[in-house]
Amino acid sequence: MTIPESQPVPSTATSEPLRILITGSAGFVGSHLVERFLNEGHTVIGVDNYISGQVSNTDLFRDHPRFTFIEADVSHGIPYEGEKLDWVMHFASPASPPHYQQFPVETLMVGAQGTQNGLELAHAHGAGFFLASTSEVYGDPHVHPQPETYWGNVNPIGVRSCYDEAKRYAEAITMAYHRSRGVNTRIIRIFNTYGPRMRPDDGRVITNFVHQALRGEPLTVYGDGSQTRSFQYIDDLIEGISRLVMVNYHEPVNLGNPDEFTMLELVKIIDDEVAHTSIRFLDLPKDDPKVRNPDLNLKLSLIGHTDFKSLREGISFTIRNMSKRA
Amino acid sequence: MTIPESQPVPSTATSEPLRILITGSAGFVGSHLVERFLNEGHTVIGVDNYISGQVSNTDLFRDHPRFTFIEADVSHGIPYEGEKLDWVMHFASPASPPHYQQFPVETLMVGAQGTQNGLELAHAHGAGFFLASTSEVYGDPHVHPQPETYWGNVNPIGVRSCYDEAKRYAEAITMAYHRSRGVNTRIIRIFNTYGPRMRPDDGRVITNFVHQALRGEPLTVYGDGSQTRSFQYIDDLIEGISRLVMVNYHEPVNLGNPDEFTMLELVKIIDDEVAHTSIRFLDLPKDDPKVRNPDLNLKLSLIGHTDFKSLREGISFTIRNMSKRA
Ligand SMILES: NC(=O)c1ccc[n+]([C@@H]2O[C@H](COP(=O)([O-])OP(=O)(O)OC[C@H]3O[C@@H](n4cnc5c(N)ncnc54)[C@H](O)[C@@H]3O)[C@@H](O)[C@H]2O)c1
Ligand SMILES: NC(=O)c1ccc[n+]([C@@H]2O[C@H](COP(=O)([O-])OP(=O)(O)OC[C@H]3O[C@@H](n4cnc5c(N)ncnc54)[C@H](O)[C@@H]3O)[C@@H](O)[C@H]2O)c1
Repeated sequence: MTIPESQPVPSTATSEPLRILITGSAGFVGSHLVERFLNEGHTVIGVDNYISGQVSNTDLFRDHPRFTFIEADVSHGIPYEGEKLDWVMHFASPASPPHYQQFPVETLMVGAQGTQNGLELAHAHGAGFFLASTSEVYGDPHVHPQPETYWGNVNPIGVRSCYDEAKRYAEAITMAYHRSRGVNTRIIRIFNTYGPRMRPDDGRVITNFVHQALRGEPLTVYGDGSQTRSFQYIDDLIEGISRLVMVNYHEPVNLGNPDEFTMLELVKIIDDEVAHTSIRFLDLPKDDPKVRNPDLNLKLSLIGHTDFKSLREGISFTIRNMSKRA
Repeated sequence: MTIPESQPVPSTATSEPLRILITGSAGFVGSHLVERFLNEGHTVIGVDNYISGQVSNTDLFRDHPRFTFIEADVSHGIPYEGEKLDWVMHFASPASPPHYQQFPVETLMVGAQGTQNGLELAHAHGAGFFLASTSEVYGDPHVHPQPETYWGNVNPIGVRSCYDEAKRYAEAITMAYHRSRGVNTRIIRIFNTYGPRMRPDDGRVITNFVHQALRGEPLTVYGDGSQTRSFQYIDDLIEGISRLVMVNYHEPVNLGNPDEFTMLELVKIIDDEVAHTSIRFLDLPKDDPKVRNPDLNLKLSLIGHTDFKSLREGISFTIRNMSKRA
């Protein structure tokens, strides 16, 4: 099933108005989802307990007539009593190592109980269920780039397992509800994503560099800076989500940007935006994050070609947003 | 740390009387654990909801002065209100493919909520927590035999993932409670185990053969019968558990028997016990169970050498037990 570029691929932009509940609405990705769906005319119920999210992200939409916010820990239930939902989108979870390592049990719970509560709510409403999984389910991969059929190489008992195994479990229980209870499910595996509203303390390299540059501090580069990473701009992720909602496909789909950049290339791009940066080289940490790169053939066959914002343009947007906030 | 054979290795047999709560007490392994601990003078609280267990296994101990039984689904809480526990041993889980594929969501829950409820109970009592994990966490392994350091090759979204991912999650949350809440934990990865009180419908090869032989039916052999399996006799597992309770080691430990037998060798052993068996050859099923074989070096270094019952002797015991019941 290959969709030619010319053929329009449906997205939530062209669908009837929907009622969508989003867990993790005060987070980085969640808040962009809320914004997109409100702009498209849908009704959105956001749920968050702010464990890694920001009240300012809720404030953005608080006065919007089609937005409601429920402050709740979804691992203990989703106290929604309103009208029939069309979609439950489960994006709640601490997502960066500094956050989930501070809250390992909470991270495990939002992957298990949180996901199950979302599935039960979707089931009760006859709604679809959309799971935000992660490229971390591939662990330290032996296959590059990673297709969805790769089973991964995850340490079940390491300090990162509270996140990785929680997400693998979330996928397994989503498939179980799909198979045994007929819930209309989606699973996406999100690769490294950046953009406005990232938490300043998320520990990710783009966030670090942008903050260091804006504060006039040297950018910390680990090792010799030749290691590569790929980065997806938030709008490209949201576009992929919006289209996958409309595609009747239940197994996991990768969403990411396959272009690789070295750390020094990234520094150069930042320096072009924020002049006069300097670099401080530090030793490579022992658990330097693993390189992952999405195989996007399945995505292409399901939703066709979508544009990627260039890293330069995405960084530029992000810096403008962050300097406004700082 | 290699323990010479001559040095006595401590086990629960020589410890002070303990108060031990066992989830899954009405199951195959659980009931043998109850029996062993009662025989050693300990106090045992069994908990089970009979989803894959047998009331007859509870009846064995119902009149014992040091045994109490609580009928409960541990995924919804462990309603124990008694005196201070020394150990919570979490063995509750559907364990064979016919059972867990019938109850995928319940299997996922007893791995997540069930394990967490056990950990919370242990934490509240200052007790140790002992998790029954499985060789299935190695999935379809690329390494033979499997050491505990092997991260496994598990399909997170396959029909078996409700069991495999539940157990990987159970290990991850056990480590999280150990690291972040200081619970004194143990994790064992149990390989294929057989013996008296196996459920007749568990779908495992020894159970099938013994039942077919006792009913005078032909033994069904898939493929040409040259594929191998290894089998651990239940008493050897229980001995390993009893010793590991006393060893202060928190990462997973394999417990299994490394000797491999072909299906035709197994048929021969059964035939020697139950005369005049015949064989019916069937095609190999598509998802023929994967071969796994325990690397036992860690076990040896932790608890020293333990004897294995021979397959012939173990089968003989099992057949005598099963023909009594039939
Ligand atoms: N950003 C990425 O690069 C990336 C990559 C892979 C996967 N993801 C996934 O996407 C989702 C969103 O990630 P993000 O980057 O926006 O992270 P984030 O931390 O900014 O947002 C997550 C939100 O979930 C909320 N939350 C966490 N646990 C909760 C609970 N129990 N109840 C209610 N709310 C809870 C947090 O408070 C936060 O607002 C997560 O599921 C994450 O695993 C993100
Ligand atoms: N037997 C093996 O070869 C083997 C191999 C690997 C791992 N294990 C593990 O050992 C443990 C025992 O296995 P088994 O072979 O005795 O299986 P079993 O099915 O005979 O026993 C499991 C028991 O747990 C009970 N149970 C399940 N879910 C429950 C719940 N939510 N609340 C209360 N009780 C519940 C069942 O009713 C049953 O009595 C399981 O955790 C299993 O995964 C067994």
